[in-house]
Amino acid sequence: MTDRMNRQWRLVARPEGTFKDSDFKWTEEPVRDLEDGEMLVHNKYISLDPTNRGWASDRDTYLPAVKLGDVMRGGTIGVVEESRNADFKVGEHVSGLLGWQEYAVTNGAGLSKLPDNPAIPLTAYMGLFGHIGLTAYYGLLDVCQPNAGETLVVSGAAGAVGSLVGQIGKIKGLRVVGIAGSDEKCRWLTDELGFDAAINYKTENVSEALKRTCPNGIDVYFENVGGAILDAVLAQINIGARISVCGLISQYNATEPAPGPYNLAMLIIKRARMQGFLVTDYMDRANEAMTALGGWLMQGKIKYRVDVVEGLEQTPRAINKLFDGSNQGKLVVKI
Amino acid sequence: MTDRMNRQWRLVARPEGTFKDSDFKWTEEPVRDLEDGEMLVHNKYISLDPTNRGWASDRDTYLPAVKLGDVMRGGTIGVVEESRNADFKVGEHVSGLLGWQEYAVTNGAGLSKLPDNPAIPLTAYMGLFGHIGLTAYYGLLDVCQPNAGETLVVSGAAGAVGSLVGQIGKIKGLRVVGIAGSDEKCRWLTDELGFDAAINYKTENVSEALKRTCPNGIDVYFENVGGAILDAVLAQINIGARISVCGLISQYNATEPAPGPYNLAMLIIKRARMQGFLVTDYMDRANEAMTALGGWLMQGKIKYRVDVVEGLEQTPRAINKLFDGSNQGKLVVKI
Repeated sequence: MTDRMNRQWRLVARPEGTFKDSDFKWTEEPVRDLEDGEMLVHNKYISLDPTNRGWASDRDTYLPAVKLGDVMRGGTIGVVEESRNADFKVGEHVSGLLGWQEYAVTNGAGLSKLPDNPAIPLTAYMGLFGHIGLTAYYGLLDVCQPNAGETLVVSGAAGAVGSLVGQIGKIKGLRVVGIAGSDEKCRWLTDELGFDAAINYKTENVSEALKRTCPNGIDVYFENVGGAILDAVLAQINIGARISVCGLISQYNATEPAPGPYNLAMLIIKRARMQGFLVTDYMDRANEAMTALGGWLMQGKIKYRVDVVEGLEQTPRAINKLFDGSNQGKLVVKI
Repeated sequence: MTDRMNRQWRLVARPEGTFKDSDFKWTEEPVRDLEDGEMLVHNKYISLDPTNRGWASDRDTYLPAVKLGDVMRGGTIGVVEESRNADFKVGEHVSGLLGWQEYAVTNGAGLSKLPDNPAIPLTAYMGLFGHIGLTAYYGLLDVCQPNAGETLVVSGAAGAVGSLVGQIGKIKGLRVVGIAGSDEKCRWLTDELGFDAAINYKTENVSEALKRTCPNGIDVYFENVGGAILDAVLAQINIGARISVCGLISQYNATEPAPGPYNLAMLIIKRARMQGFLVTDYMDRANEAMTALGGWLMQGKIKYRVDVVEGLEQTPRAINKLFDGSNQGKLVVKI
């Protein structure tokens, strides 16, 4: 035993609808000694993402469901504090899925080392240079293969992924229309990020607003939400449209099964393609995206925001900011 | 005026649910004289297809909605009886969309000449060598890019398109499972056409039957029906699955908007692609399909059936055979 105490959030109930505090249990336990090949990582940040909701359900998704009683799964960035693993040295920063806890003993499987670059804040590796940036980059460019001059619509546009997707779209010469949930977010999209137009789905008729802002129809749709917005978009797609299905956040908290789009026949009428993807499939091509994103960042062509919540204790409450739309940029917890 | 009388079915009401006799009106009128550049086609066969239902609705699809009062749109094969068009000679056979009528005066736009081959019955150009064959060929091979050894599921498998899709799948080395609506159809698929298995969706639990007949999951799905069957398939797709959306016949007669699949999130989890297509986009590549289909036919590798209804008068009643599943093979009306 070391003299360190680990503080943890364990999943103890399957959430119905949004997460509740009672779905988690706070535990504290001593950190155990390392065996050969292991190291101790001191987590500094936890990444909160819509996919966490799926992991907490009782259905396996692309990863097995988190078992009740286990530490909640979550993306993390931490520093190696002790090491009996030749591949990792004390002081190195690593990212991985070490969960909602302060410490983790690990053999290093599934961890990535972060470059030692004082100019880049650690949280960037959970946003622009992490799964968020890769998701936006490959979900738009690889899945949709957009062409300059086409019209791109992004839902969840003020979110971590959506805001990058729209900016990459502008860099690639697309007309970009974002859909978001407040006037403040819409102003941020158009005034700060350079979107051509933004639609507040809470106060506007999305179908009419799409007609107004996409006079030439919709060629590419980056889907983060599902539901009625997907139907409104489908009704206005062009021949050969491509829909990248990144997320369906409107359905993640549904207690009843949520129906798919009523306008599915538009896929036939418009010979359109709807394709799901997971960023995990692009990890071996991460360098291409990192280089491009880093270059654009340095040129001032893309901006990103990080919404930092302080304190591991806050994690169960913080995550619902994703679902009520109150987060401003990539949501992370600083432990 | 010629002395010929044209007999016609005009669309006079938008169908609610399935077609009713009262949605059409029988009219007779003299055939008018030809102007320069025109010809008179005597229609011999009408092709009845699920897409006719969409054309009769008040919504434009990939073609404008048929106007009330107009002759109902339909695929036809006919023979040129008079011609003042240098490109078409009397006695030549032509296929096109000349509608539910015995005669048509046309300038030839949109018509294709049929080869003069006594070994091939005219109805083959509405089935194997027409839009049916092309739909099956390109909808499977081009849209889905299947690989030998993969598992293909086809819905509407005993239909004109579905039965060809399954046979092409077998030729390409796939495991093929068909879904159809009667034990007799299922026997035809397995015993005559060589499908590996067939599921009667009216008497079997489709999810359980898919589990049993697709032990390695589903790689390719050729979608003709939509609804609950699409959901059952989505639940069992493999990573990288491809879904070719040819039709959604379960929804065509719906009087209320029909929801899309509840399992849409499977597109993300399995990085799957769902893509609509129209055979009209493949017309410039028709030769490739015709050559392959003709070759397979001659080698005895594919079989097809034509369900011929006699008499133009029967057309409005005959078309509902598509929707109650009572047709046996490609449905045509012999005028």
